[in-house]
This record gives sequence, C-alpha cells and structure tokens, in this order.
Amino acid sequence: MNLREMCLKAKSASFTLASSQSRIGDALENISKKLISGADMIISENKKDLERSKSNGMSDSMLDRLTLDMPRIEAISKAVLKVKALPDVLGKGTVFTRPNGLIIKKVSVPMGVVGIIYEARPNVTVDAAVLCLKSGNAAVLRGGSEAINTNLALCEVIQDALEEANLPRECVQVLSDTSRETAGDLMRMNGLIDVLIPRGGKGLIQSVVQNATVPVIETGAGNCSVFVDESANLNTALEIIDNAKNQRPSVCNAAENLLVHEKAAKDFLPMLKNRMDEKHTELRGCEKTLQILPDIKKATEDDFYTEYNDYILAVKVVRDVAEAVEHINVHGTRHSEAIVTESMENADYFTANVDAAAVYVNASTRFTDGEEFGFGAEIGISTQKLHARGPMGLEALTTVKYIIQGNGQVRS
Amino acid sequence: MNLREMCLKAKSASFTLASSQSRIGDALENISKKLISGADMIISENKKDLERSKSNGMSDSMLDRLTLDMPRIEAISKAVLKVKALPDVLGKGTVFTRPNGLIIKKVSVPMGVVGIIYEARPNVTVDAAVLCLKSGNAAVLRGGSEAINTNLALCEVIQDALEEANLPRECVQVLSDTSRETAGDLMRMNGLIDVLIPRGGKGLIQSVVQNATVPVIETGAGNCSVFVDESANLNTALEIIDNAKNQRPSVCNAAENLLVHEKAAKDFLPMLKNRMDEKHTELRGCEKTLQILPDIKKATEDDFYTEYNDYILAVKVVRDVAEAVEHINVHGTRHSEAIVTESMENADYFTANVDAAAVYVNASTRFTDGEEFGFGAEIGISTQKLHARGPMGLEALTTVKYIIQGNGQVRS
Repeated sequence: MNLREMCLKAKSASFTLASSQSRIGDALENISKKLISGADMIISENKKDLERSKSNGMSDSMLDRLTLDMPRIEAISKAVLKVKALPDVLGKGTVFTRPNGLIIKKVSVPMGVVGIIYEARPNVTVDAAVLCLKSGNAAVLRGGSEAINTNLALCEVIQDALEEANLPRECVQVLSDTSRETAGDLMRMNGLIDVLIPRGGKGLIQSVVQNATVPVIETGAGNCSVFVDESANLNTALEIIDNAKNQRPSVCNAAENLLVHEKAAKDFLPMLKNRMDEKHTELRGCEKTLQILPDIKKATEDDFYTEYNDYILAVKVVRDVAEAVEHINVHGTRHSEAIVTESMENADYFTANVDAAAVYVNASTRFTDGEEFGFGAEIGISTQKLHARGPMGLEALTTVKYIIQGNGQVRS
Repeated sequence: MNLREMCLKAKSASFTLASSQSRIGDALENISKKLISGADMIISENKKDLERSKSNGMSDSMLDRLTLDMPRIEAISKAVLKVKALPDVLGKGTVFTRPNGLIIKKVSVPMGVVGIIYEARPNVTVDAAVLCLKSGNAAVLRGGSEAINTNLALCEVIQDALEEANLPRECVQVLSDTSRETAGDLMRMNGLIDVLIPRGGKGLIQSVVQNATVPVIETGAGNCSVFVDESANLNTALEIIDNAKNQRPSVCNAAENLLVHEKAAKDFLPMLKNRMDEKHTELRGCEKTLQILPDIKKATEDDFYTEYNDYILAVKVVRDVAEAVEHINVHGTRHSEAIVTESMENADYFTANVDAAAVYVNASTRFTDGEEFGFGAEIGISTQKLHARGPMGLEALTTVKYIIQGNGQVRS
C-alpha cells in the first residue's frame, strides 16, 4: 500500500472514529491487554532492531531508548489504561442564538488524521496511537527506521485490538517505508493529514517545519533561562538553578542559561560554582562573570543560543530585569523561563514581557510538562503560538465545528 | 530598510504593544480621525494606482475594489471605531493550583507579529492593521502591487496615529517591495513572523500554503453544498439554495453544489430549474438529474470539485443522506455545508458526519461570516483545523501564556 492509499484509508477510518466514543474505549482496553499477550512477539521483533542497531554502532543511550522488555511493556500497557480513564474531550461546546433565530453550537471534534514523525523510540508508537484514538483521531505514524520491526509489531497488536472493538484497522497505521522521501511525501499530504506533529530532536523538528505544507505543531526545542534578581533569596535561587540544570539535562525544559543581577553576582556566583562543581557541571561565563569566577571558560555569543542538553551552563551578569528580559527574548526559544525574586514588581515585569510558553516565578523550569500541569497526558510541548502553546494535552488534538440550526433562514 | 530589519522592528514593537492596551485604544481613535483628515492625500495616491492599473488593462470589478473615495474612507474610518469598541481579548484566563503549591495561570496574550498577504484591496490594509492592533499584535502587511501607493499612504496615516499615541511607528508596516521574492522571504521569516494569514483568491492562498515555513492560517476556499433531503420542505429548500447560490456568488460561503435525495428529485428539480432560470443561473447535472431536466448541461466529475464563484450550480441526485455526506466529504473544502430536512435523525447524521467548519440545518450557507456569527469583526474564514476554524474573530489573533507562581518548588 502506498502512502497516499494509507492516508486515504486513515481519512476514511477517521470518519468512523469521530462518532465511536464507546468503541474507542473498548479498543484502548484491548490494546492494553494485547500488549501483554503479544509481549513475546514484540520483544522478539525488538531484538531484531536491537541487534541490527548494535552492529551499526548505535550508542548505549540510544540502544536503551530502543529497548522494549517485559517491565517496559507492562508500564506502557498500564499507561494505555490511564489514557482511557481521562475525561473525554469531544462534544464539548457552547451554544448561542442570533437575533435572526439561528442557533449556533460550537462543539469540539477530532482533528481527523494526525501524522506523527518521531525517532527510534517505540514507546512513542503506542503513546501517540492511544492519544490520537482517545481524542477520536486516526494516526499515521512514521518512526525511526532503527525501530521498524518493533513498530510494525506494535502496530499489529494495536490493529488487532481495533478490529476486536469493531473499528477499522486503519485507525492506526505505521509507515513500513521509513525513507526520507516518504517522510517528505507525508509532510505534503494536504487534505489528508490534518496536522503533523514532529517529536524528537532539533534536526527532525526543523526538517518538518522547513518541508511540510500540511499544518504543523512545532514542538520541543528549549533554550531555557533562569534569572536571579537582585532581591532573590539566594538559597532558593541555588536550588532552582541546580534543579533546572542538573535534574535531567537532556530534556527540553532543562535550563541552559543563568542570568544574574549585577548586585547579586558577587554573593551568588561563588555559591553557584560550588554546587555546579559538585554536580560536575561546566560553567561558561560572560566577562563580568569571569571577574568573579576567573577559572571558568569564557562564554561566546553562540553559547547563549545553544541548547546543550548536557551538564553545561552559560552564565551572564545583567544590569537589571529589563536586560534579562531582553536577553531572553533575543536568545530563547519561547519555551520556559524563570525569575527568582522577592520583588513583586520585577516578577510582574518579567512575566508580562518575557515571550515564552511558560514563565515561572520562584520555581524550576522543569515543571513545563503535561503531567506536572495536571493534563494527564502529553502529546508534546508546543513552542509555536498557533493552536497550542506549552504542554499539549488531549485538547490539542481536537478542533471545533460550528453546527447551525435554522428554520429556513436566508441572508439578506 | 530590508525585510528582515522590518520584521525585527515589528518584533520589537510587538513587545511594547503587548502591554499597552490603553495606548492602543488611543491609536485606533487617532487612525479613525486621520483617515478623514488625510483623505485627500490618500485619494490622490489612490488615483495614481487607479491610473496605472487602468492603463495596464485591469478589469472594472478589480478597479472597483481598488478604488478609495470619500464615502469609502468614511466607512473605513467608522469601522475602525467599531473595532475599538469591541471587548478586549487579552489577559483573559484561568487559574489552577497544583498539589505542590504551584499556581498556574493560563492567560491570553497577543501572537506577536502577524503577517498578512493580500490582493489589491486597500480596505484590507486598514482592516488588518486595526484588528492586529486591537489584539495587541504588530502587523507586517504585504498587499497587491497594484495598490502600492494607496497602501503606503494608508500606512503613513496609521503610523502617524501610532506615534501620536506614543506607540512605535513599526507596529504597522507595509512592504514597499511587492516582488514575489520578498513575499517568499516573508513566508520564511521563522522566529519573527508568528503567524501568516493569506487573504485572497485560491492561487494566493495555495502559494502561501505551499511555500511558507512560518505558521499559516489557511483561509477562504469554499466549495459548499446544499443537500435537499427526502423529507425537506421544498419551498424552504428552494429559498435556501437560491440564497446560497445567487445572493452573492463571488464569495466563499456561496453554494456551488446541490445534492437532492432521489425521492425528492422529481418534485424539486423542476422548481429549481424555474427559479434558476429567473436568476440566469446555469445548472449542470448528473445523469439522474438529466433524466428529469433533459435540457441542462451534463456535469463532469470536475464540476463537483469546482468553486465557480459564479452563476453556475452543479446538481447531483443521491440515494440518501449517507451518500450526500460521502460526496461532500470527498469533494468539499471543509467550509460550509447545509442540509434541508424535516428529519431530526438525518439532520443529526449530517451534522455529525460532515467534516466542515460550519454545518447548517435548514439555513443558507451564506451565514458563515464573523459579523453574522456575532463576532463583531472578522480577520478571515479558516478552512484548516489548526488554531481556528470557520469565521475568525479577534481571539484568533491571540495565543496563551502560562504564568507559574511558586515559592521555590523544584522537580523531584
């Protein structure tokens, strides 16, 4: 089956899904069960991917992300039930009546067909599929080629579960052709793919943003900063930057930059240096930082644009909150930014003027996450402003429809 | 000033706008006044455009759309005050508290910089500028080259009004370079243009959808259908299709197709023919339609995909509501679709299964419009599902920001 045929079948399946809320619940239940009953098959297919990838020289951390074993499959199976239990997001709406008697109902409906392009992480296959199903959408999934056997095995399990719930198998499809050309074709399936969401590293996301003609939700990149204001409680500031930088440096909501008010720098920077040394985190500083911490490496302008995703922190001394805000708005990726301050005025200035999805006062940037926000699920973190911004729950996979009831009204 | 510099200045101006609600009100008031006091200058610049376009052979209807005279300027000036009087859409939001004590506020904020690409209609220059300003956004406007003198004159008036309200002139900018290359560059100003909205014909919109890498809201194309069900009141049906087709055929919410239930066809089609003959509207029919109306032209499959924007209507006899829905979902542009029926069951089936921004029961498709929906303003009609669908009011020019207040929380 070629890509266009797949997308046409997905579109057709999406019409069935849009009015099948109870069957979707059954399908999710079935998926959870069949992941366990099919675990041996999944693990054996996963082994093929792991062996090939190992012999191709894949790194240990990548191999780890590619691995599915029984405990991981059990965790995925449980997570499916958690998504099933989330409140429905479809059919919500408002009604208003016009002077001419038209009754206009604005109601939430599925997007239709959601495309997801992602890397060699088989857990995303199940995660994306069940979030799409729960929100009434068909899914066309294009995972990394390294995980192809695992993804096709997972897809078979999901499709069997759909069929048993009396839903079309094509509600969830995995592209068996993982070529770049076919990914490019998927990005240009206008009219069949209603939204395309890339999940992965910067290269993947930029490739989708640059090449797609279907609507895209840009996710992920996070060059986040913490600003320590003059009035900050320095102990609080230290815990926040330590957490934001070191608790999990590989993720998008980790901090990459520290900005320090010039009046707090002398006291704070030595505290920072001690803590970062304990965590083996490298500091790179601006001129003024180097005057206080002469032993650290000098930061270039490029450093302040870089999402290290590593134990490295760029440090800059700033004149005031206005300079901090300006620096962030120029260098940041509009993801998550924090101020540590005891000044309500500066907090308000910061939150009003920083242009980012999530702006924190006296808390770690690491909280930008669907679970932490209480959304129950997360399809990604949007760094664009269209449609969804910040952590995206199930609602981000819905759109609206206007249903207008008349009794013969015509326009004059 | 090159395009990148313009966009950088727009971005910078957008930060000022985001927190200047009262000055924006002043600016809108000033724009309204200065359109009148500057009318002579605007009209004289408009004459240059008209003369050049006339000698280039522009059609009368296009020349009419390009023309600004005193009554039109007065109407535009009044419309600005109407936008000023609309309720504010910024700073609205919800607050929730997490178990760890974080207080999360989700608040509506401007997009930032809105790009608009449109044709030789100078009224759009003012309309787009004031809608962007009212919603706190900077605007970068690229109008049709035929209107360039008029647009630059209007821009000067708007910029003077901004300056008088103590706002940066660069809150609203018109591209003086109307080349295709520069339009293409505007479509790829990622990071500086937060959303790009094309307003105009199919060619313009498709060019933006195909070439833009910044987020786009697709607007406009409307291949709309009316379905006359078996149980329809045929007089009601006749008034609805007459209105939907003939009241203003050039617009996107006009009907292009009529679908008739086979059991209603014999009675309805001759009624239709009489009315359409009166309106000089051409009918093109499927095989079954021709059996009842043998004198009309045969419709090709292409006809059912065509947005005529003219006094032409394609007619198809269908077996039942299910076939009507399927036909619409295959051939339509997801804009506006109507059923005429006395069956609640069929109405529900139609509204649930037709995939379109606006689905009507017993009313004309012509109501899909921001004014008619009571939104007070319209920046366009979205035919995509991302961000906004159907008529877009001021809210469509906003996004959200999460502001999170903590007291030292870190993630464990």
